[in-house]
Amino acid sequence: MAPAAFQDQFRDHPTFGFVDWVLRGIGQVVFQNNPVSGAVILAGIFYNSWIYGTVCLFGTIVSTVTALFFRADKGMIKDGLFGFNGALIAIALVAYTSQNFTTGNMPNWHLWLYIVLSAAFTTVTMPAFGALFGPHKVPGLTMPFVLATWFFLGALLQFSTIDVSNALKPTSPSDFSGPRPEYTWITWFHGITMGIGEIFFQDNWVTGIVILMGIAVNTRIGALMALIGSTLAVGVAVLYGAHDATIRDGLFGYNAALTAMALGGTFLVLNIPGFIYTVIGVIVSARVWASLGIFLEPSGMPVLTSAFVFVTWLMLLARNGFPSLILVAPADATTPEDNLARYRAAQKK
Amino acid sequence: MAPAAFQDQFRDHPTFGFVDWVLRGIGQVVFQNNPVSGAVILAGIFYNSWIYGTVCLFGTIVSTVTALFFRADKGMIKDGLFGFNGALIAIALVAYTSQNFTTGNMPNWHLWLYIVLSAAFTTVTMPAFGALFGPHKVPGLTMPFVLATWFFLGALLQFSTIDVSNALKPTSPSDFSGPRPEYTWITWFHGITMGIGEIFFQDNWVTGIVILMGIAVNTRIGALMALIGSTLAVGVAVLYGAHDATIRDGLFGYNAALTAMALGGTFLVLNIPGFIYTVIGVIVSARVWASLGIFLEPSGMPVLTSAFVFVTWLMLLARNGFPSLILVAPADATTPEDNLARYRAAQKK
Amino acid sequence: MAPAAFQDQFRDHPTFGFVDWVLRGIGQVVFQNNPVSGAVILAGIFYNSWIYGTVCLFGTIVSTVTALFFRADKGMIKDGLFGFNGALIAIALVAYTSQNFTTGNMPNWHLWLYIVLSAAFTTVTMPAFGALFGPHKVPGLTMPFVLATWFFLGALLQFSTIDVSNALKPTSPSDFSGPRPEYTWITWFHGITMGIGEIFFQDNWVTGIVILMGIAVNTRIGALMALIGSTLAVGVAVLYGAHDATIRDGLFGYNAALTAMALGGTFLVLNIPGFIYTVIGVIVSARVWASLGIFLEPSGMPVLTSAFVFVTWLMLLARNGFPSLILVAPADATTPEDNLARYRAAQKK
Repeated sequence: MAPAAFQDQFRDHPTFGFVDWVLRGIGQVVFQNNPVSGAVILAGIFYNSWIYGTVCLFGTIVSTVTALFFRADKGMIKDGLFGFNGALIAIALVAYTSQNFTTGNMPNWHLWLYIVLSAAFTTVTMPAFGALFGPHKVPGLTMPFVLATWFFLGALLQFSTIDVSNALKPTSPSDFSGPRPEYTWITWFHGITMGIGEIFFQDNWVTGIVILMGIAVNTRIGALMALIGSTLAVGVAVLYGAHDATIRDGLFGYNAALTAMALGGTFLVLNIPGFIYTVIGVIVSARVWASLGIFLEPSGMPVLTSAFVFVTWLMLLARNGFPSLILVAPADATTPEDNLARYRAAQKK
Repeated sequence: MAPAAFQDQFRDHPTFGFVDWVLRGIGQVVFQNNPVSGAVILAGIFYNSWIYGTVCLFGTIVSTVTALFFRADKGMIKDGLFGFNGALIAIALVAYTSQNFTTGNMPNWHLWLYIVLSAAFTTVTMPAFGALFGPHKVPGLTMPFVLATWFFLGALLQFSTIDVSNALKPTSPSDFSGPRPEYTWITWFHGITMGIGEIFFQDNWVTGIVILMGIAVNTRIGALMALIGSTLAVGVAVLYGAHDATIRDGLFGYNAALTAMALGGTFLVLNIPGFIYTVIGVIVSARVWASLGIFLEPSGMPVLTSAFVFVTWLMLLARNGFPSLILVAPADATTPEDNLARYRAAQKK
Repeated sequence: MAPAAFQDQFRDHPTFGFVDWVLRGIGQVVFQNNPVSGAVILAGIFYNSWIYGTVCLFGTIVSTVTALFFRADKGMIKDGLFGFNGALIAIALVAYTSQNFTTGNMPNWHLWLYIVLSAAFTTVTMPAFGALFGPHKVPGLTMPFVLATWFFLGALLQFSTIDVSNALKPTSPSDFSGPRPEYTWITWFHGITMGIGEIFFQDNWVTGIVILMGIAVNTRIGALMALIGSTLAVGVAVLYGAHDATIRDGLFGYNAALTAMALGGTFLVLNIPGFIYTVIGVIVSARVWASLGIFLEPSGMPVLTSAFVFVTWLMLLARNGFPSLILVAPADATTPEDNLARYRAAQKK
């Protein structure tokens, strides 16, 4: 039984095909090869800020067009796999150069040009991770976005035409030694929903819920996993007494939510050992976010989704050591439901 | 002639087998697949501090049980290869969260739980390095411990329930520009013996000597290599005028001692070019320790055994370029004596 | 048609062969397997400073002799491939330990010994990158030099016998928020020519032009690429308003010039998509230099040629995704002219 990605009449349409690919590109940030997911998520971003919605669309278009220009694999382009890193880097560059992080400020032309180059560069580096990790059947995830953002954001500190002094503040790490904060239901509710929103840099709990709905359009299990991931991350942070504001901003949750979706059904079949393995990965991701923050504080650079990438890479690379875990090759990975059904069908033969 | 690891009647014993594997796990920190080595080393740690002895045993048990739970390769579990990273991370987490680094303070329940997760995570990442470096016949060494400790220790700065302010102090690197310190015989004696002790975070020269004895139980050459490694590192530090206290604490020696054992007979046959290659690696390891300390100072994080891992990885990966060096695949590596004997036997055929 | 590297009667000469290999080693810093290129470049360095000329020669000799001692591949030694990392690390160690960076101070015996070990270590690690990247047909570039310099230079902060306080200054990154500097023709002229000179740490525009001539001896296209690379880097820096002094010191240009030569004809055939790909790589390299500077500022360590290495690695690894780009395997890479001619000849068959 071949993998059945979501199909619609637009994927191969001569005129509207491109729109379909771009929307899938936005969906692929959360592993959803589905233009409806992408459209719902985009609507959620526009709800929070029309500026972020616009640049998200712009970045996805630029990185997709770059892939077309260099004649990358057409199937991968149509699946949105060259779009999602561009979507993220465009929002990131605007967010960290805005006086107002929450809704963003309109970029000047220096920054628009910068976004074009950055988004094109994520396309150019995509296949590098395929070359390195492809033989292990491990996907590149959002590493092109993370690397390119570190490369391009850091450089802005040296240029006078774009101001990043508001968002990038180098500091020396200090130990948070208590007392343990008093948490409320807001800690939990904002922490969990903003944890989903922060995947797209959106400080807005409504947007977080809309993104979750966008995922659920394509896969119920995937949406549940994202929710479990963000919730466990808040739980760990509360248990160990993290800063209340940091939890409420969703900063513990977004890497954990991505790891939960990646390991929990997308690139591993969701059996019982797979689920326990995912829970370990989720808790670890929340901590790795906290730790990488400490490593990056002296340079003032943000963690982005690097915690998710490092933990998921390590745990997918490791799974050969554990025969109870069933790998799904990136080219075959669709939804947790479909991956599980195909595995069970193959078992019966 | 097949590799002959140390055998005893307990390795496959239904009841006592687990004890054997755990003791081998402690021995594997210094490459000794021998429960007696592990027992002697554990005794040396208990001599310095019953707290460190207890957590070392606890960490090794947790990481070994995790490997059993996920059904990792039984031969590797029995050889202690899933235990040694757990042994180290447990001691490290207690050492860097204690008011008293030398003997450690009793962990609170937050920290016990944290150790469980950390030790389990080292098990989970072990096979990742096998997947990456296995084709090159290069072992993962203590990288799971190093990575996991950086991930989990850094995170503690963001949590109020566990205090690390005593041990993790972010600073800005400054140049030590003299005058050259006056060194005494204490510099040499403590530097060399504590250099062995610091492999297990033990600030105790007696423990260092006991660990050396534990190695010698299994291999005389291995013990000699550890001694040469620690001695050369002190020599380099004295020649170039490092801080006296840093040398006396054994901080230059522990990475060098590990590199000396790894390259000097364990993963390379100990012929003359191999010995010279090892000497280069040892001296470089002492310097890489000093350099990584500078890179990590702004974040306050410790170097751990990363200098040993990076240097040994590079030099084992490189050995294909130098036909005079004879590689021993990790699966075949036993003791320097045995590796040499098998190589000579194979030559005679 | 086999690749035709520059041949002369000295490459296999029993007495003068070694001189030929060492000069090729200096030429290989800028990808030129040609002793005349090496000699011209060396003359350019001596013009700026006899100290830098001497240590450059010394470092190349040490790393070449180390390769001979460990019996590395004779063809690679004769092509200078074991020399160029030694040439660079020797100059780097003197430059960063001198009161006067521009012309360098004479090393003390501690430093001479240190250079011997460092240069030998670059030889030892060379094949490691061959093992890791060889299967992808991607060369190790100057990574052995970069890693070894970070390892050995950082360590010097901890030793009293060699003073690095003049050149290594840990700082906290701060945002350059304007006003945009007034640039003059000096910005452009010094920026471009010093950008070539800084490949060898030479703050001297005459030396930069001589190095360019040394490249042109072997390949006109290569020299043009270096010039385009350095010019584009200055252009990007001026457009986005970087510090005038930083541009004039050639700091934006040297990584960009190396990327331009590597991607523009040496390791990719210079067709139209290849040229556009190179332009992207060049602009990105200039930015990655700026960004890595921010990441390294808290530790005070220099960027060296790491920006060039990371960007070129990523873009060569990625090229499998783009069929319009034609890879030249490192073992076949000679000059852009020759690579292009061989590709066209192969097409005609």
